[in-house]
Amino acid sequence: MTDREHMGLWAFIRPTTIHTAGWRFPGANPRANFDLAELTRAAVKLESACFDALFMADHLSLLNMPMDGLKRSHTATSFEPLTLLSALSSLTQRIGLVATGSTTFDEPFHTARRFASLDHLSGGRAGWNIVTTANPDAARNFGFEDLLGRDERYERAREFVRIVTGLWDSWHDDAFVCDAAEGIFFDPRKMHALNHKGRYFEVDGPLNIARPPQGWPVLVQAGASAAGMRLAAESADVVFTAQTSLEGAQAFYRDIKRQTVAAGRLEDPCRVMLGTLVVVGRTEQEARDKRALMDRLVHTDSALASLSVALGHDISALDPDGPLPELPVTNQGVSSQRRVLEIARREGLTTVREMAQRVGGYFGHEVVGTPAQVADQFERWFRERACDGFIVMFPYLPQGLDDFVDEVVPILQERNLFRRGYEGSTLREHLGLSRPANQFL
Amino acid sequence: MTDREHMGLWAFIRPTTIHTAGWRFPGANPRANFDLAELTRAAVKLESACFDALFMADHLSLLNMPMDGLKRSHTATSFEPLTLLSALSSLTQRIGLVATGSTTFDEPFHTARRFASLDHLSGGRAGWNIVTTANPDAARNFGFEDLLGRDERYERAREFVRIVTGLWDSWHDDAFVCDAAEGIFFDPRKMHALNHKGRYFEVDGPLNIARPPQGWPVLVQAGASAAGMRLAAESADVVFTAQTSLEGAQAFYRDIKRQTVAAGRLEDPCRVMLGTLVVVGRTEQEARDKRALMDRLVHTDSALASLSVALGHDISALDPDGPLPELPVTNQGVSSQRRVLEIARREGLTTVREMAQRVGGYFGHEVVGTPAQVADQFERWFRERACDGFIVMFPYLPQGLDDFVDEVVPILQERNLFRRGYEGSTLREHLGLSRPANQFL
Repeated sequence: MTDREHMGLWAFIRPTTIHTAGWRFPGANPRANFDLAELTRAAVKLESACFDALFMADHLSLLNMPMDGLKRSHTATSFEPLTLLSALSSLTQRIGLVATGSTTFDEPFHTARRFASLDHLSGGRAGWNIVTTANPDAARNFGFEDLLGRDERYERAREFVRIVTGLWDSWHDDAFVCDAAEGIFFDPRKMHALNHKGRYFEVDGPLNIARPPQGWPVLVQAGASAAGMRLAAESADVVFTAQTSLEGAQAFYRDIKRQTVAAGRLEDPCRVMLGTLVVVGRTEQEARDKRALMDRLVHTDSALASLSVALGHDISALDPDGPLPELPVTNQGVSSQRRVLEIARREGLTTVREMAQRVGGYFGHEVVGTPAQVADQFERWFRERACDGFIVMFPYLPQGLDDFVDEVVPILQERNLFRRGYEGSTLREHLGLSRPANQFL
Repeated sequence: MTDREHMGLWAFIRPTTIHTAGWRFPGANPRANFDLAELTRAAVKLESACFDALFMADHLSLLNMPMDGLKRSHTATSFEPLTLLSALSSLTQRIGLVATGSTTFDEPFHTARRFASLDHLSGGRAGWNIVTTANPDAARNFGFEDLLGRDERYERAREFVRIVTGLWDSWHDDAFVCDAAEGIFFDPRKMHALNHKGRYFEVDGPLNIARPPQGWPVLVQAGASAAGMRLAAESADVVFTAQTSLEGAQAFYRDIKRQTVAAGRLEDPCRVMLGTLVVVGRTEQEARDKRALMDRLVHTDSALASLSVALGHDISALDPDGPLPELPVTNQGVSSQRRVLEIARREGLTTVREMAQRVGGYFGHEVVGTPAQVADQFERWFRERACDGFIVMFPYLPQGLDDFVDEVVPILQERNLFRRGYEGSTLREHLGLSRPANQFL
């Protein structure tokens, strides 16, 4: 374990269940994804367990799936991340607040300003999950017929991130002297206009908000393509990954750490966080039964629609009992398609229907078992350097979350694998990350 | 008074003082504009006095003025409106939350979604102050060398507003059935994709958030040009105006009500809210002394810079002791330039310096006097149909706000000119506005 004393624990709260049918589970609040009281209760409870952060994924459209599946999706209505996390910032004191923001369909000035504002409102708890948005339905909400190609999306993202971090450094930390006697509000020598002129953007600056308490809000990145990993290695404090095998996760872990060092970042390597669905039972059998029930609650229409999303191709016109044809190269996210095809090969699934039933609920990393078994698995993946921590996905709210917080977290704390109290007050402090110096000082 | 039982009272909270030197006033919190604790205290206090709403003006850049003046401006750092109001939504129960949003430098999908989200988070208390952004420095933060012309900005704004309201109507109020037994989350017959293709925008929709509690968040508009008034008459629930003479205000009031009716809106005419700086003293002399001290605290550099902003022209190269030359037609807001020239004519100000000292602090509508005198003035302007209510600007925080809330509001309540308790829970209910029907039903 050496330098890595504690694992990280983040909570995936949008959607509140990653499993397609989680909202239908007996006892689940089916409206949890859009129920402010339920989300507030979750945030307060996760903070009582000293979680590092709440993590909000996001979409800029409905899921791009046929209506037969879409009408079964509990994500069709959600709060917008920056507004929800700002509201939750007033109801919590320590937990980090990580919102997804698109570099393809938003402006760097707005993005820099809103995350800076959330960082100030929360006393240094903001994080930005940088996404390039690979959903063609999102493009059509912003006047684009088609998406940019993946490489171009990532080129734009790199420039976008440079602008945002440059705007965050518009002011020295001590620029605002507020000298009422002399009538000087700020020291002009401590202001920096960016005057960026690049391939995709021209942004003058300075930003009209003081430097964030964290210097820069925490930067998170999740793309698994070569371009995504390059962006992560250059810029990200945290990488969110979706590995399903221990060996694959270890290889990814080594690769991203190596690329980070190669990019010149010796002191603050990326933290690798593994998205993990956790289903807890009093016995192993109870946990397995719960997990099996979740899959049984997935309607065939929903399974087929989810397979389309996972593959980045509409498969609704295919014969469900025929084989999946060779797919052309897609412009959308590569990691989920790759994982589906791996699972199909590994498990000998040949027809579209077999694949849909297998991946229609959830097909990422998961841990199913008793609290001790879950803790064992977390400990092993952490100690064996498959990850630095977990972005925990709860099967449903509220009980699925309570099971993890009440039963699993105390075991991790007893084993000294997770904190018993917050050591600091900012998200960077929770993660053991240094505060970036102002690049213009 | 007939149909108008109570006046409206809104609080202008960004900036926290509209007066250039308000932050320097003895006893003022010079950081109030960017002090979350101070803003929270203000919001809670205003809610205890049953104010209709908090109103946040906004800029998408620093003020465009020379550095000699800019360094004296307390607005150089501010929270971003939607994040701040979301945070305050968790700390208040009834008061409305009105944020400024630009139709020139943002996307209709984002705007519709974020205001819908704030409306849900706050239980129906959101309002959108629609601005077209007439600041060339803002343009240069979004890749534009120059602003669009005013007429084109307003054409874009009209299309933008149609899209936003169309997206708010994406879902029927009862679309989300959340039927866990059947696995149906929403009824597809109760969803409407906008498929907008217009001159400036193409937006498919639907929005990925349920219809706002208010149907539509309250629409506010402040432009005083012919194009601005047309937009207001067509779309706005509330018009924010800056009239300084009773007769001028009455003429504006009649004009906007007439235009609203001409636009076919017979039942929900625009509410006209008058921006008003209020300075309260125990005696009239004390109030006048306070007001005079505020103006004495304006530095000459700041006064000259403020005159540039008010005129929409950089006057820093002119001889301060020479006359103001004829100004070319400006692309920026017309109302403040018009008011400055009126004041100069009325008061016989001829040199640049005289004009700067006169308008460098604040030159809009103001009321200065004892609590009873302030109440008298409010009553007169309200009863004589110069306005339907006031957007109150406090000279500084906290005492300038407390003076109004503690001393003036009780008199207005005694006279039955203002509510003693909230009648409803949404901002529309506070304003006596109906909830719009879904246009696609």
